Amino acid sequence: MSKKNYDLPDSPFSVGFVDAKKRVLATEDNPFKTESGKELDYVEVEYECYGKLNGACDNAVLITHALSGDAHTAGWDRNSDRDWRKDRPGWWDAVVGPNKAIDTNKFFVICSNVLGSCYGTTGPASINPKSGKPYGTDFPIVTIGDWVALQKRLIDSFGISKLYAVVGGSLGGQQALEWALAFPDMVEKTIILASASRLSTQGVAFNAVGRHSIINDKNYNDGDYYGKEPPETGLAAARMLAHITYLSEESMYEKFGRKFQNSNSKNYNFGIEYKVESYLDYQGKNFVKRFDANSYLYITKAMDYYDAGEKWGNGNLLSALERIKSNNLIISFSSDWLYTYQQSLDLAKNLSMLGKSVSFVAVDSIKGHDAFLVETDMVSKYVKPFLEA
Amino acid sequence: MSKKNYDLPDSPFSVGFVDAKKRVLATEDNPFKTESGKELDYVEVEYECYGKLNGACDNAVLITHALSGDAHTAGWDRNSDRDWRKDRPGWWDAVVGPNKAIDTNKFFVICSNVLGSCYGTTGPASINPKSGKPYGTDFPIVTIGDWVALQKRLIDSFGISKLYAVVGGSLGGQQALEWALAFPDMVEKTIILASASRLSTQGVAFNAVGRHSIINDKNYNDGDYYGKEPPETGLAAARMLAHITYLSEESMYEKFGRKFQNSNSKNYNFGIEYKVESYLDYQGKNFVKRFDANSYLYITKAMDYYDAGEKWGNGNLLSALERIKSNNLIISFSSDWLYTYQQSLDLAKNLSMLGKSVSFVAVDSIKGHDAFLVETDMVSKYVKPFLEA
Repeated sequence: MSKKNYDLPDSPFSVGFVDAKKRVLATEDNPFKTESGKELDYVEVEYECYGKLNGACDNAVLITHALSGDAHTAGWDRNSDRDWRKDRPGWWDAVVGPNKAIDTNKFFVICSNVLGSCYGTTGPASINPKSGKPYGTDFPIVTIGDWVALQKRLIDSFGISKLYAVVGGSLGGQQALEWALAFPDMVEKTIILASASRLSTQGVAFNAVGRHSIINDKNYNDGDYYGKEPPETGLAAARMLAHITYLSEESMYEKFGRKFQNSNSKNYNFGIEYKVESYLDYQGKNFVKRFDANSYLYITKAMDYYDAGEKWGNGNLLSALERIKSNNLIISFSSDWLYTYQQSLDLAKNLSMLGKSVSFVAVDSIKGHDAFLVETDMVSKYVKPFLEA
Repeated sequence: MSKKNYDLPDSPFSVGFVDAKKRVLATEDNPFKTESGKELDYVEVEYECYGKLNGACDNAVLITHALSGDAHTAGWDRNSDRDWRKDRPGWWDAVVGPNKAIDTNKFFVICSNVLGSCYGTTGPASINPKSGKPYGTDFPIVTIGDWVALQKRLIDSFGISKLYAVVGGSLGGQQALEWALAFPDMVEKTIILASASRLSTQGVAFNAVGRHSIINDKNYNDGDYYGKEPPETGLAAARMLAHITYLSEESMYEKFGRKFQNSNSKNYNFGIEYKVESYLDYQGKNFVKRFDANSYLYITKAMDYYDAGEKWGNGNLLSALERIKSNNLIISFSSDWLYTYQQSLDLAKNLSMLGKSVSFVAVDSIKGHDAFLVETDMVSKYVKPFLEA
């Protein structure tokens, strides 16, 4: 991808160059206790901000990222120590910026990297102060509830008592939902894209296979591989598999068909041959350069565990949703089979049955789950008026 | 599974005890040339037969098996040297037997193991006569066309000049289709279940990830692992992944929900935790005891390569199907997302547009792709009258 596909930093439609920032949000005096019951004595959170917080502190929009995302939502991070970041803008640059759907002329936008990830926030690759070595799998299991609780500390540190909105897609959408449930008085508007109150059985199954591949990689070594060869082929397998679930069969067919990568005739060997094979291979190989296998384990486990109805309604989603006070926008995509249209509709219906304010949009798209990232015109069409109403 | 779920061998509805048989169908004088251009100087085929071939030799029904199947379609093989076979009847025992849908009182039923498999027919684990060692990946890439050409040799060896029917599900359905295309004068009736004229892009993608897992297993050693530790975790990953594609989300949810295997509360670790995880783990571990990883590579590659329209119609399915002379029954299953209802319908429509004899059935089932194996009452309901008409 070249910069010319995007708003350039000097464009009035871009948030321009940004620097990731860090805040220490847990210390020995103020440890962070996870839902699993374990305590972290030191937690640093990486975040980015765009736009200006107004005097009333009531224009803050929190964006929550998905599985492999980070705090770098918009603009250009030329000072990043992560090479892969330098040649592309933030992951939702088309949606976040001056006059864009999430308008940084109006809103103070914050996005922070989740606990357990590998993009600046404390995670399994961080140094465990007790041992002086990377945590590895000594890092506590984290949950979406933990992510939101830590984001709450970040929001508090800005002196913001109520978010104007929380917005997220996929696993980010579940964080947005959790915000509305855990801190109902702190959220004015909730926008949930391509998400659901919990992952399907099939989704849990795909994550299980991904973790199996990582854990059984010859280099995994129970998660203690820092400074050694990392479990790259296992992580690549997990990513390749996950990528299939991000696309629809229709978009895969449109993009790759059954075409070969390099020739018109069969190779008659087990090398990479089909375009779709080559694409997945590329995705796998690129991912291992930028993502930590342990973080992949932690984040998929958080994805499996989340169940809003179980957590807040004793197994009953309807009773869980009674807590919600925000106005809600739920956006689903017709060809998304990871978090399906039906799951989004169920969430919207339940909110509606309770008399909550909810708008439900079913976007017709062949782009599958990835639609929330790539169908930015359609996303903007619904997000902008909802936010500005 | 216990025997009591099945017809016992002494039941009049069972084909009883059977012994797998072998025939040598290629020798140095009569080598088997694969579509890839390589020759095999020695090919032995394992097959089973049930019922009696009549004097006119016109009551033969060939059943073609799917990816992990074998020749053992019906009855009990108590003499098998494969332990996993002894406690269960053949894979389609509910469909094949006296008075059953494929009635062994009327038909002479044959099923043979495909070339490249690991169940008695020559494959990568067989000894290469040129080296005196197992072939490994020196075995030639095989195709569905090769499987059918070898089955033709078997049929010829019985003195059968025309099959009354060819019947197969999934990859077996593609063999049945290939029979009707390659040897149109030798097939009276074709029954294709849960199959399509070619695998979808998504299906090719899943196979690519499965092969990636095997090829990158620490024990794979370029396929030269016989007599050493086999690439079990890679093969298990491939099988776990494939299993997800055999079930529908609905049947997975019904069977496992989001329940934990051993406790009601979260374990907060990366061990096997959800019932669905435990099921997949079991499927993976069991599969590696009975299947050869190289065979998995060869068979999935054959699955990827098959494209009836490309092979027989220069890319045009309609013109390919002009060759077909058989009466055809196509059975699809509503929740099958590996070989979809739509793909089966496309095949039926194309046959119909050509004025070919075709019956199309869409079975309403939540069982996913596995439906052709487990919805035996529904399968029998349509197969029996079509065969006996």
